[in-house]
Amino acid sequence: MLGLMQDWPLLVHKILDHAALYHANREVVTRTVEGPIHHTTYGEMAPRARRVAHALERRGIKLGDRVATLAWNSYRHMETWYGITGIGAVYHTLNPRLFPDQIVYIANHANDRALFFDTTFTDLVVQIAPKLKNVEFYVALCDREHLPKADLPNLIAYEDFIADADPAFAWKDFDENTACGLCYTSGTTGNPKGVLYSHRSNVLHAMMVAQADAHGLSNKDSVLAVVPMFHANAWALAFEAPMVGAKIVFPGPKFDGASIYELLDTEKVTMTAAVPTVWLMLLQYLEENNLKLPNLNSVLIGGSACPRSMIETFEKKYGVEVIHAWGMTEMSPLGTLGTMKHDIVDLPYEQKLDYKCKQGHAPFGVEMKIVDAEDRELPRDGKAFGRLKVRGPAIAKGYMGGDGKDAFDSEGWFDTGDVATLDPRGYMTITDRAKDVIKSGGEWISSIEIENLAVGHPAVAEAAVIGVVHPKWDERPLLVVVLKEGKTASKDDLLNYLSGKIAKWWMPDDVAFVDELPHTATGKIQKSALREKFGSYRLPTAAE
Amino acid sequence: MLGLMQDWPLLVHKILDHAALYHANREVVTRTVEGPIHHTTYGEMAPRARRVAHALERRGIKLGDRVATLAWNSYRHMETWYGITGIGAVYHTLNPRLFPDQIVYIANHANDRALFFDTTFTDLVVQIAPKLKNVEFYVALCDREHLPKADLPNLIAYEDFIADADPAFAWKDFDENTACGLCYTSGTTGNPKGVLYSHRSNVLHAMMVAQADAHGLSNKDSVLAVVPMFHANAWALAFEAPMVGAKIVFPGPKFDGASIYELLDTEKVTMTAAVPTVWLMLLQYLEENNLKLPNLNSVLIGGSACPRSMIETFEKKYGVEVIHAWGMTEMSPLGTLGTMKHDIVDLPYEQKLDYKCKQGHAPFGVEMKIVDAEDRELPRDGKAFGRLKVRGPAIAKGYMGGDGKDAFDSEGWFDTGDVATLDPRGYMTITDRAKDVIKSGGEWISSIEIENLAVGHPAVAEAAVIGVVHPKWDERPLLVVVLKEGKTASKDDLLNYLSGKIAKWWMPDDVAFVDELPHTATGKIQKSALREKFGSYRLPTAAE
Repeated sequence: MLGLMQDWPLLVHKILDHAALYHANREVVTRTVEGPIHHTTYGEMAPRARRVAHALERRGIKLGDRVATLAWNSYRHMETWYGITGIGAVYHTLNPRLFPDQIVYIANHANDRALFFDTTFTDLVVQIAPKLKNVEFYVALCDREHLPKADLPNLIAYEDFIADADPAFAWKDFDENTACGLCYTSGTTGNPKGVLYSHRSNVLHAMMVAQADAHGLSNKDSVLAVVPMFHANAWALAFEAPMVGAKIVFPGPKFDGASIYELLDTEKVTMTAAVPTVWLMLLQYLEENNLKLPNLNSVLIGGSACPRSMIETFEKKYGVEVIHAWGMTEMSPLGTLGTMKHDIVDLPYEQKLDYKCKQGHAPFGVEMKIVDAEDRELPRDGKAFGRLKVRGPAIAKGYMGGDGKDAFDSEGWFDTGDVATLDPRGYMTITDRAKDVIKSGGEWISSIEIENLAVGHPAVAEAAVIGVVHPKWDERPLLVVVLKEGKTASKDDLLNYLSGKIAKWWMPDDVAFVDELPHTATGKIQKSALREKFGSYRLPTAAE
Repeated sequence: MLGLMQDWPLLVHKILDHAALYHANREVVTRTVEGPIHHTTYGEMAPRARRVAHALERRGIKLGDRVATLAWNSYRHMETWYGITGIGAVYHTLNPRLFPDQIVYIANHANDRALFFDTTFTDLVVQIAPKLKNVEFYVALCDREHLPKADLPNLIAYEDFIADADPAFAWKDFDENTACGLCYTSGTTGNPKGVLYSHRSNVLHAMMVAQADAHGLSNKDSVLAVVPMFHANAWALAFEAPMVGAKIVFPGPKFDGASIYELLDTEKVTMTAAVPTVWLMLLQYLEENNLKLPNLNSVLIGGSACPRSMIETFEKKYGVEVIHAWGMTEMSPLGTLGTMKHDIVDLPYEQKLDYKCKQGHAPFGVEMKIVDAEDRELPRDGKAFGRLKVRGPAIAKGYMGGDGKDAFDSEGWFDTGDVATLDPRGYMTITDRAKDVIKSGGEWISSIEIENLAVGHPAVAEAAVIGVVHPKWDERPLLVVVLKEGKTASKDDLLNYLSGKIAKWWMPDDVAFVDELPHTATGKIQKSALREKFGSYRLPTAAE
């Protein structure tokens, strides 16, 4: 027997409609590519998004078509998202930080039919346009005055594109499982793979992050969305803020300390979100200029592990609560959030900090388990570590075009490729990437834990630990180190430094000194390349 | 094109599973019918709920079957809900405050196959049992020691019922639109009508109320659910609290000031929810005993309009924020919540209070509009009033068995039967029940507004305003008054009192003094009976 409740599909444009009716005067603020800071409201944005939808429809864009964006966070980018999804087309965020060839591969793999871009990227777009097989027209996110003189087929300024379109255009109706957004993950190996969000997953995900122990945004908040919209949906902020009627502030192209501080200050931002790199720049700027953050209540830090010292500085020096977060493009991206639970919040600060350094706990809607090599579930005791698998309504069940099938099992679990522990309170800690774990005599050694310790040595600029073949133990750890300029340290110096900090059998069997480590386009250490380089390395212990 | 996100149906037992994994040690506290206060946790509750599911299945209860409860708020009642829904059966909350014949009608209309009841209601159950056509067995929510000696077929104590059932019983899998809960509304006329919630609607509704500007519960909260589970799902608290890991406290059968205060105090309650009647008793008790409410942050007041003076007392005297809420059984029940928006929160207190006296604004997931007699949408200007229609994923699209079809239109809107205004900020104010509005010369007069003013007169105990036929104006208002014992007031006294407070053409044409007003079983003034009584009343103005 079915319930007798209304068939009200979860569609993302309903979020903007809600904002326009119930939070009409709430502001959307953007630092534009042109320079000035632009102010609009949800009430003004909704009819402009409908214009985008109408203009796209007139160009023949229809249900299921992919429309790419190569753009900073801005009100126009946000309008574009809602306009695209309002006719059942799919916004496809391209990451401008990738190599041009990767962008071409991704846009062609997705069959993007149009490309909206910020004029910052005009040269890049002109460079790749000849290789974009399916893109029929280009929309520069600017007005006619700022339209670049570029050799691009069917190029039009955004404001001209929507000028005579209907601000009362009716959104299309369709199933809530209709595709809505697309974002490719760039792994450290292989081609990027496309994650295809649905309307349902985006709406549910926004509702999940709006809970008090997740982001918990309210109408009284002003949120600065530093995390890019091309980075896993800007962590849902462009959906969550209008859903709850929070003011949203977009940094456009500027992430330097002075620019971020200016927005935090003038827009009385109460919550913000980005990766540690951005916060390093901000903290340095605050320090140099002796500034405070009186309005800011909390900062969401994700993307990669957040240094303990950064958490401490934000909290102790600036009175800003740090919420450590972890997620993946495949998870929309929310996985876990490091908000403090009732029985932790009153602990002494150092103990609280231990919890803040973990990746956090999962909200309702994210199931997690850790498993061993035979896929048997491991205990949630904070000690056992295993492959982290996740399940939920905003988690991928496959990649665009059937790529990467190995990551999904028959019970619907997605294998994150991470190795983690889960503690009895539900806090998760990433201990490694599964492929980087060192398998020594059937036991696992976490490369990340050793790396994090090694970079604490005053002479070490960067460190990586990889497994190298060993006749007795299968693999043993090799520490690969880049020293800071002008500093010296011997193998023994480094091993002595690690001694006592890790289990004896985790101690690297050798240390290799290199001038630099290989990195991916997004800045991650490319361990696959490192393993290749040291593929035939003979450890001094190999003869034991 | 569909998205590639996981098919993860929204099922309510996933909420309890989440709580058991991520909030295992969070408490569930109950004042039992037997007297003592009982403590358990979500971690202990989940396997007991699975036992209920298993025990029901062994008795032949299957997908879609209705299982009734006649019970106070308690951990056993909550376990019962999750146990029932975990096999796809439907919990059907019976309201013990209804007349026995109404309960019989409802239980038979729903085809309830079993009845779980608190021993408080043993006599009532014994009285109605012979008329309950489909109830096969009775479960008393107690242990064997407290099992009443009652003449009921297949009676068993709850603890015996679940004793040898499997605590690891696997929940059933089914579609998220499967029926989950059932609650009948008792209108002022006609037979009660059944609202049939689905798993999807209950889960989405819990996610809606968990937003910061709705209830906004967090893991750090302790919530006292005074509002009964038989009253529109206890306003979602039995789903929301485990979803976010808040501690939940149940008052069992005791609602008096001393009992409620004791729980607020000993369980360090931070948020609570009930109708004004309960809060009147509590405030009186606090006053008499010179007590404070140091832990309580907010109180949710709904069910009927909350007096301005009560809001002021809670906020000014006790430092407890009042959140005025409005909803209906048909809405799961959330409609609106009176949390303060960003541009109201800093207004002078009296102006804020004006907003707090409104019914509040709708969260994402509740669409609202007001329409005139021809179903044309009216402006959201805070002045125009019209029939309030609502739409959303947790709002009924029909009643059990096809009753009450008139309330649903072809575009999916449910007609609340209320007349309301909507202001530009989205705050809604109920001005009347549609059937009680007085139609004077094509214009509408709000009976409630005049009544609320009339009861402010020191001699008036209770007041009702009804429309009486008028040869020129169709209808004109008649004020029907019950005077306080020992007090006197004339027609002119009362009309003079109203003069200047309402528009001239709203002034009642006459005042009738009566000894008492007719009421429904749940305490509402029965205006239909009143209109019948004054059906042939001749107004002094009728000869004009």
